[in-house]
Amino acid sequence: MSSAISRQDILGMVRGRRPGYSLEAPFYTSRDVFELDLEAVFGRHWIFVGSEPEVPEPGDYVTVDLGRWSVIVLRDDDENVRAFHNVCRHRGSRLLAAQSGSTGNLVCPYHSWTYDTGGRLVHAESVGPGFEAGCFSLKPVHLKSISGLLFICLADEPPEDIDEVAAVVEPYLDPHGLRECKVARQIDIVEDGNWKLVMENNRECYHCGGHPELGFSLFPTIGYAEEDIGPSRRAAYDRFKRIDAEMTAIWERGGLPWRQVLRLAGRPTGFLVERTPLDRDGESITADTRVASQRLLGDFTSPRLGRQGLHLQPNSWHHFLSDHVVTFAVLPLEPGRTLLRTTWLVHKDAVEGVDYDPEKLVSVWRTTNAQDAAFVAGAHKGVSNPAYEPGPFSPTESWVEHFCAWYLERLDAHLGGQP
Amino acid sequence: MSSAISRQDILGMVRGRRPGYSLEAPFYTSRDVFELDLEAVFGRHWIFVGSEPEVPEPGDYVTVDLGRWSVIVLRDDDENVRAFHNVCRHRGSRLLAAQSGSTGNLVCPYHSWTYDTGGRLVHAESVGPGFEAGCFSLKPVHLKSISGLLFICLADEPPEDIDEVAAVVEPYLDPHGLRECKVARQIDIVEDGNWKLVMENNRECYHCGGHPELGFSLFPTIGYAEEDIGPSRRAAYDRFKRIDAEMTAIWERGGLPWRQVLRLAGRPTGFLVERTPLDRDGESITADTRVASQRLLGDFTSPRLGRQGLHLQPNSWHHFLSDHVVTFAVLPLEPGRTLLRTTWLVHKDAVEGVDYDPEKLVSVWRTTNAQDAAFVAGAHKGVSNPAYEPGPFSPTESWVEHFCAWYLERLDAHLGGQP
Amino acid sequence: MSSAISRQDILGMVRGRRPGYSLEAPFYTSRDVFELDLEAVFGRHWIFVGSEPEVPEPGDYVTVDLGRWSVIVLRDDDENVRAFHNVCRHRGSRLLAAQSGSTGNLVCPYHSWTYDTGGRLVHAESVGPGFEAGCFSLKPVHLKSISGLLFICLADEPPEDIDEVAAVVEPYLDPHGLRECKVARQIDIVEDGNWKLVMENNRECYHCGGHPELGFSLFPTIGYAEEDIGPSRRAAYDRFKRIDAEMTAIWERGGLPWRQVLRLAGRPTGFLVERTPLDRDGESITADTRVASQRLLGDFTSPRLGRQGLHLQPNSWHHFLSDHVVTFAVLPLEPGRTLLRTTWLVHKDAVEGVDYDPEKLVSVWRTTNAQDAAFVAGAHKGVSNPAYEPGPFSPTESWVEHFCAWYLERLDAHLGGQP
Repeated sequence: MSSAISRQDILGMVRGRRPGYSLEAPFYTSRDVFELDLEAVFGRHWIFVGSEPEVPEPGDYVTVDLGRWSVIVLRDDDENVRAFHNVCRHRGSRLLAAQSGSTGNLVCPYHSWTYDTGGRLVHAESVGPGFEAGCFSLKPVHLKSISGLLFICLADEPPEDIDEVAAVVEPYLDPHGLRECKVARQIDIVEDGNWKLVMENNRECYHCGGHPELGFSLFPTIGYAEEDIGPSRRAAYDRFKRIDAEMTAIWERGGLPWRQVLRLAGRPTGFLVERTPLDRDGESITADTRVASQRLLGDFTSPRLGRQGLHLQPNSWHHFLSDHVVTFAVLPLEPGRTLLRTTWLVHKDAVEGVDYDPEKLVSVWRTTNAQDAAFVAGAHKGVSNPAYEPGPFSPTESWVEHFCAWYLERLDAHLGGQP
Repeated sequence: MSSAISRQDILGMVRGRRPGYSLEAPFYTSRDVFELDLEAVFGRHWIFVGSEPEVPEPGDYVTVDLGRWSVIVLRDDDENVRAFHNVCRHRGSRLLAAQSGSTGNLVCPYHSWTYDTGGRLVHAESVGPGFEAGCFSLKPVHLKSISGLLFICLADEPPEDIDEVAAVVEPYLDPHGLRECKVARQIDIVEDGNWKLVMENNRECYHCGGHPELGFSLFPTIGYAEEDIGPSRRAAYDRFKRIDAEMTAIWERGGLPWRQVLRLAGRPTGFLVERTPLDRDGESITADTRVASQRLLGDFTSPRLGRQGLHLQPNSWHHFLSDHVVTFAVLPLEPGRTLLRTTWLVHKDAVEGVDYDPEKLVSVWRTTNAQDAAFVAGAHKGVSNPAYEPGPFSPTESWVEHFCAWYLERLDAHLGGQP
Repeated sequence: MSSAISRQDILGMVRGRRPGYSLEAPFYTSRDVFELDLEAVFGRHWIFVGSEPEVPEPGDYVTVDLGRWSVIVLRDDDENVRAFHNVCRHRGSRLLAAQSGSTGNLVCPYHSWTYDTGGRLVHAESVGPGFEAGCFSLKPVHLKSISGLLFICLADEPPEDIDEVAAVVEPYLDPHGLRECKVARQIDIVEDGNWKLVMENNRECYHCGGHPELGFSLFPTIGYAEEDIGPSRRAAYDRFKRIDAEMTAIWERGGLPWRQVLRLAGRPTGFLVERTPLDRDGESITADTRVASQRLLGDFTSPRLGRQGLHLQPNSWHHFLSDHVVTFAVLPLEPGRTLLRTTWLVHKDAVEGVDYDPEKLVSVWRTTNAQDAAFVAGAHKGVSNPAYEPGPFSPTESWVEHFCAWYLERLDAHLGGQP
């Protein structure tokens, strides 16, 4: 739809950006920028792809498409989670076609080259003399688990700050015992907008008036400073202040860390972790703010623990609640098409229909995701219009500004040659 | 499908064109030429987008997509018709998603920035100190009404010849009282061909043998000089000559202007206006050549007034009849896909089912449009073939030649820097 | 999906290729290479498009799309088969829209310009004085019939080696009397992969384990040297050796040529012709290895004649059996989409439902084609992955290596300027 843009032009736009304003249109609409995003962002950073409960047993796998890449994430025979490129070393056929499944060895469907779960080529017929099987192992992909959340990195040398991220966030997440969970439901939707519009949409609550169902449990003042509270959010904010004080005492008593750590820009792996209260009964993000699963996570004995939130750049956010965890992965498909994968997890001993009702579990986010998809589609259409020009962020959109600044830093580092 | 073509290459093709022959293939098939068409033709000329009866009341609007542009045409609280870019000044979201509707203020669905019908930003919450609402009005688009036909221009400085067009054509159109009409039916179809093939298709009757239903009322000799009448059109032409003389006397008595004014090339806004007779009962373009609406337009007392035709370059043609008006807007979507929007209007006091039958109203053009869509699709496939070379126009296709000459002039003026 | 690649870059990849390894990814995925393939391979070589029984009578035609070209193949009034570009010489409209049919003169649907079956413009109304109809004949396309198989060449100067191909292969094919056949069934499928992956897929039996239905009649050792037989094929190979000796005696007695002639690379028109035995009852490629049509072809009196195979580069393969012929045409649509047209022909006197059951006739290849389409789709996804790198062919894939070498030679000759 748009003309070719050179990398030099992109670098010029990166460095000429007006801070505090939305990005120039080509960052959202240009295929050249999209290809650069795949290379510089998705090809070089730690990308959230799922969680350990998606591959509970040896041989269990998921495949994840990232641009033209396809990556196998599987639990090997020693129960370690590993990642490989989903490409046979013979003539390149895709090895695993399904999005998830369970396998013994990995047998290529085309000519039956066979790899073990460690990626070693263990069988190939009629290959002739002198063939060195050891040269044709599956290509490995870096993988890291943080409290059970799985991240891959396609770069040869992944960003090292992931260890610091893990050190900071694991004390927040570990009490929820994600590794002892199971997948209750997973829903993919395709949003008609650039992946950055999907991320930006999630990084502010300035639009939360458009989410009545979510607003029943989540305070619509996330990301707001006190001085930016407008009349439409005043009552909710006063309630938030009161409940926040009450919940902080509960978290302190329970030994749960809660202080916000915001390190969104200035580093490869931007993140924000915090524990916040929920409105009304305050137990979970459900239609009635009460738990969806009676089997609480970890060693929790009380359902009223608020929301343990985690944002990670470039592509995910997560809510850890007393009764369930919900993860969101943003996977770019085209400049104007993005997959949003939402996964709800409950304790592995929770029994569907007895301990939890899957419909209650998913209803708020399924509805909210659909609302956000409409916002993202409208935003993408808007920035595609030649009449679009960047407009000013509200002070309440500071995390969007952080995201944009981080994104441009990453492009600058990639294009400018700095590490 | 085709390789990149530079603007210099395009200018070379423009200036090297063989007059009297169809255009070189890239003018129809190249994405680069298509992007240039959007910029140089649709971005700089007066584009027909609808008529006043489509927005009868304050707050009524239509949205029109032109390439990546989207334009709001609405009637403001002072009953003036205005046009704005359909882009919020905050982060660019599309403001109005529907193709038509009615609104009070314009409220952006994303973050509720609110504009009045004059485009002024009248509300935005939490924008922080120092925010100047006056800097964030909706961006206006030039709009001009000619006897109720609405034209927009996306350029900063629109072509000035529109005033001359209005002065010439309004005496022909005004007696039909379009502003006192209402929309009876609107049908969009997508033709699988370049927008210029859609226009060229309409500019000649050399193919009218393929329109038996239309040929019942419309003489198939439109655009023919007497010496070019072939055997297949001889009888129709003789009938035309006889009826034309008879109708001219009627028009003269009624004070209706009828002489052809043809100013298709050599100017930004090419046009052709003329009143012509219809065959048989001669009242209207319907299956039986009699009026589809008993409530005649304007102050007409007799239904037998022939066809008041208007062609406008780049993108429309119109038939004003004694009982209804039908307008055609050509809106490019892709190099090989074009939207044709056909709108039938009757007197606003005509009652559906009593004064008019919508099925009778639309049947001839709905059928004819489908036939033309097949011709255009075949033409597009043909010019996409590497074996295609421009062929000679028939003398009966002189208006196609005018259109091509006008189009190339416009590109030349744009690329060559002449005004 | 991939960046622009210059012709110089392509030539570099052609000359830098590692022999014995699969091709670099851009040969399969790049739009620039695809456009070059259309120009250098499909625009300059002899392309299989169908067989004479598809146009049995004067006026019968088929239209074939090759990239943006469309070609009419028809039998003229003198019963010769001819080919023309499917483009009207007036304004370029596609002349014949249907994939096949029967016509007298060829009348353009748009403005009725009319051509006889020899391509001469015999009627055009209102063309004005000085019009030279003789300058506007349909543009001819070179056509060659080999034993009834039809090949076109879009180049001005077609490769001359087609005559040598004909001289070699006609003695193998003629006994099957293809010209005395009729089409029993034709099935088009679109495979989600590059046309070369479709050809490569057909050029080796290393993947034949994925074809249980085909493997009932066809020995899975085609293309194998004795030293490359692995344990999975040992029993079949021993059976092949025994039956091959038996059949060779039969062919010799019947005067049927059978020795393999393999001239796949080093020339424009690569080909491989050979007669091979079939397994079990050995009569035909059917689910039970017995003939599908009781009316044998040519003068055959015994059904057990094995398979007369023919490969032709760039785009076809054929099996001539005692009771039917099956032809395969590979027609590129997009870098990652390819049409495979399979046609089953039986003796023209065979009566459907009496002499042959069309379902039995088509079942093996319809099933096998679907299996191959899955292999090709997986291969295309794999080579589209940035992690793909060319891998080593098995010795059993020597014909794939021949195909790749031939293909690169053809690009080199085209890009390097050698004939």
